[in-house]
Amino acid sequence: MTTNDRLGIYPGTFDPITNGHLDLIDRALHLFDHLLIAVALNPNKNPLFSSAERAQLIRDSLPLLNAHDWQSRVEIVEFHGLLAHFAIERKALSIIRGLRAVSDFEFEFQIALTNRSLAPNVETVFLMPNAKYTYLASTIIKDVARHGGDVAPFVPPAVLAALRARFPK
Amino acid sequence: MTTNDRLGIYPGTFDPITNGHLDLIDRALHLFDHLLIAVALNPNKNPLFSSAERAQLIRDSLPLLNAHDWQSRVEIVEFHGLLAHFAIERKALSIIRGLRAVSDFEFEFQIALTNRSLAPNVETVFLMPNAKYTYLASTIIKDVARHGGDVAPFVPPAVLAALRARFPK
Amino acid sequence: MTTNDRLGIYPGTFDPITNGHLDLIDRALHLFDHLLIAVALNPNKNPLFSSAERAQLIRDSLPLLNAHDWQSRVEIVEFHGLLAHFAIERKALSIIRGLRAVSDFEFEFQIALTNRSLAPNVETVFLMPNAKYTYLASTIIKDVARHGGDVAPFVPPAVLAALRARFPK
Amino acid sequence: MTTNDRLGIYPGTFDPITNGHLDLIDRALHLFDHLLIAVALNPNKNPLFSSAERAQLIRDSLPLLNAHDWQSRVEIVEFHGLLAHFAIERKALSIIRGLRAVSDFEFEFQIALTNRSLAPNVETVFLMPNAKYTYLASTIIKDVARHGGDVAPFVPPAVLAALRARFPK
Amino acid sequence: MTTNDRLGIYPGTFDPITNGHLDLIDRALHLFDHLLIAVALNPNKNPLFSSAERAQLIRDSLPLLNAHDWQSRVEIVEFHGLLAHFAIERKALSIIRGLRAVSDFEFEFQIALTNRSLAPNVETVFLMPNAKYTYLASTIIKDVARHGGDVAPFVPPAVLAALRARFPK
Amino acid sequence: MTTNDRLGIYPGTFDPITNGHLDLIDRALHLFDHLLIAVALNPNKNPLFSSAERAQLIRDSLPLLNAHDWQSRVEIVEFHGLLAHFAIERKALSIIRGLRAVSDFEFEFQIALTNRSLAPNVETVFLMPNAKYTYLASTIIKDVARHGGDVAPFVPPAVLAALRARFPK
Repeated sequence: MTTNDRLGIYPGTFDPITNGHLDLIDRALHLFDHLLIAVALNPNKNPLFSSAERAQLIRDSLPLLNAHDWQSRVEIVEFHGLLAHFAIERKALSIIRGLRAVSDFEFEFQIALTNRSLAPNVETVFLMPNAKYTYLASTIIKDVARHGGDVAPFVPPAVLAALRARFPK
Repeated sequence: MTTNDRLGIYPGTFDPITNGHLDLIDRALHLFDHLLIAVALNPNKNPLFSSAERAQLIRDSLPLLNAHDWQSRVEIVEFHGLLAHFAIERKALSIIRGLRAVSDFEFEFQIALTNRSLAPNVETVFLMPNAKYTYLASTIIKDVARHGGDVAPFVPPAVLAALRARFPK
Repeated sequence: MTTNDRLGIYPGTFDPITNGHLDLIDRALHLFDHLLIAVALNPNKNPLFSSAERAQLIRDSLPLLNAHDWQSRVEIVEFHGLLAHFAIERKALSIIRGLRAVSDFEFEFQIALTNRSLAPNVETVFLMPNAKYTYLASTIIKDVARHGGDVAPFVPPAVLAALRARFPK
Repeated sequence: MTTNDRLGIYPGTFDPITNGHLDLIDRALHLFDHLLIAVALNPNKNPLFSSAERAQLIRDSLPLLNAHDWQSRVEIVEFHGLLAHFAIERKALSIIRGLRAVSDFEFEFQIALTNRSLAPNVETVFLMPNAKYTYLASTIIKDVARHGGDVAPFVPPAVLAALRARFPK
Repeated sequence: MTTNDRLGIYPGTFDPITNGHLDLIDRALHLFDHLLIAVALNPNKNPLFSSAERAQLIRDSLPLLNAHDWQSRVEIVEFHGLLAHFAIERKALSIIRGLRAVSDFEFEFQIALTNRSLAPNVETVFLMPNAKYTYLASTIIKDVARHGGDVAPFVPPAVLAALRARFPK
Repeated sequence: MTTNDRLGIYPGTFDPITNGHLDLIDRALHLFDHLLIAVALNPNKNPLFSSAERAQLIRDSLPLLNAHDWQSRVEIVEFHGLLAHFAIERKALSIIRGLRAVSDFEFEFQIALTNRSLAPNVETVFLMPNAKYTYLASTIIKDVARHGGDVAPFVPPAVLAALRARFPK
């Protein structure tokens, strides 16, 4: 990766990665040379999967991307601390966030304006997922899987297997 | 109840039932032959009343309905697990939800689209409560009762008594 | 139609009918025995198609419905005046509205509460279209067609033909 | 009115005044010594009633206020031009606006921030109407009256008479 | 303070006070003779600072106000129980709330309508902060400080020092 | 401009350009090699300035940008027809839109999803303006200028002069 390459950071909890996240990664690869998927530790959110497991589930799902050259362009990292500091450290051009619905909107703006204050040269860029993913949320997927419902339409195969292992019938 | 009868399911935590819920039950009885009030266990939400108490408070409040024949048309059940599976099992035509305000909107849509994926033949129907109940919420009612405030305008008499017993002055 | 049959009214301008409207008609047929599609004249909105043309485009598109018995269950009428009065006159049980997004929400509630005041026994029922139609609007479709864009993914074939005739390249 | 008296301005089109507006005037009189009801000319909005008629309908409706001493405390004026300039000229302490619903919110904030820039010492104050007026809008009332619907629950008697005179059956 | 003086109550958790809160206090002092800043105990919210510390941080920040005579007009109190009861007890004319964004809106209305039911003579008044504080939230500020980010642009110096003491690098 | 250069299109009516638009142009130049400012003709919106005037006002304001090399990177064009077709024709990578508030959100999503259908390889990117421009709108600025109010804080000097010429006192 040369210093002139445009790097975008796509941060999230990814607990676990959904088809909506994958769709957004493909869109981000359309705009940036390299993409850093930054898996937040989030210990206080009490995630279902450890950050290492979440990173691995992303890794296992990337072959589903449309971008054929993702292997040389995508990196997955676990991070803790402030995203803005991490973005500066990695010389990122942008932070990438998906914007699905009105309920996302104001919280995302709070975060983005705080990041702008901490890292003025890292612009937050909002992308819109495919409309069919507008109301898809990891929280609900986990709840359905926990009660034995079928989440195959919403997640990559690796995640489906992990959820079934975690919640055996 | 014959197999041709139209059954609606009105799910909720009902912790406790409010005048707004009762208003919605009356509206649902206008549209469906039979109504199943499904009280979610919700152990992780740490409810004030047990699901058995919540079901009993609903039962004690039904005589306030405008529909004179509610006794043959309303059933109260406690349920856990996935609402969509329960709706299929009970051969329900619809899931009924009240839609009060914008903040309800997107969360309800997430739930409804997930239920649609799990039970494609059970349509979610949204009803609008009486305008005076637009900003009524069980959470705030409990908070007022806990601090000795008067919640008589918001809940049926049985609930008022139960709240007073739970929070003696 | 016997007096015991449940009649729903689905009102709108339908200028022109879209795939999103058709999806909603199918959902309404799941809930009601008979459906009255009420085409509002709306002369002050300056519609692209006359109300007779709009009714005909609906008629031409109904064979696309999933409900196989739509012919005996769907009626299309043009109406002017107050929807609430029309609903009373036709002994409708319900008015049916699609609720797509937050921007619909409050306007729909204003209308529905006014209708409730004028016709207390006609309950407004909100249904949710397929998620892929969440952001579909007749206004934008017409604008795209006017400028020669392809609207085939959004409208039934009869509407596509009518738009092409209206806006030849 | 001494110079120490607190003056609030309640601006609007009032085409025509509704029960919701009256409710807000009562609330404003609770907070301010004197209240200036400022009727905007709004020629480009094509109002139903002239500004003189609108002012008269307000005047005819004020006896319905709960505040017994409204006669010495309320003034009705027609104005054109910028509200902020008018507020400065009248030495008003505040501009008063009703906030009913989310759809009002952002437009009102645009206006209020512009007024703050033009008149930094005139604070905009938002009041909440009675919940039953949350979804009440002059536009819909006029539409109902135009088509012969009953608007008696929504407007003062003087307005009811004026609407019936304007739209005879 | 004579009985004729107008008293406003500005309630909140203030964990900790931000520049946005200070801006709102200045605006409230424009409208009311005396202002009671009511620091809610909120033990169940698990605040970062004790209510005594939060009250002290407010006290230390008041010299930054534009109102030169704040010392004779502002009082800081810790309270628990129902705000409406406290407002009645203190003969307050109004409860003051800042309204920043749509996500505040409906929750604030729920609270305000409940307070109206409990204390009909205490009107809730909504003020709009300076636009630059629209997306400022104590929760995010604490999160940034916890991870060593610079929150100097968002909080008064006393709060900055307290956060640095609480989260040493 | 080589074919490998990343081109963003920033479309709008720009009637007239505001400080908020300029802020967004600077942010877009951070992300894209070249920027095409596409001035929509919009004859049916009845703009205050002709599209040629609007383009000239943008041109006159660009020297205010922070990006020192804007002259070789920014192009201004007037366009009519479909933005998506224009973006394809110009081989643009992205369409850029500012997202200020909830009221923008859903309309922008309707437009963006339609553009995605017409031009699947042109991704719409949403940027967030400086918070102080959140509630800034050309419509209100024109209204203030029309009535002799001071709009200097909101627009570049060239626009201020043009508005004063258009609305002499």
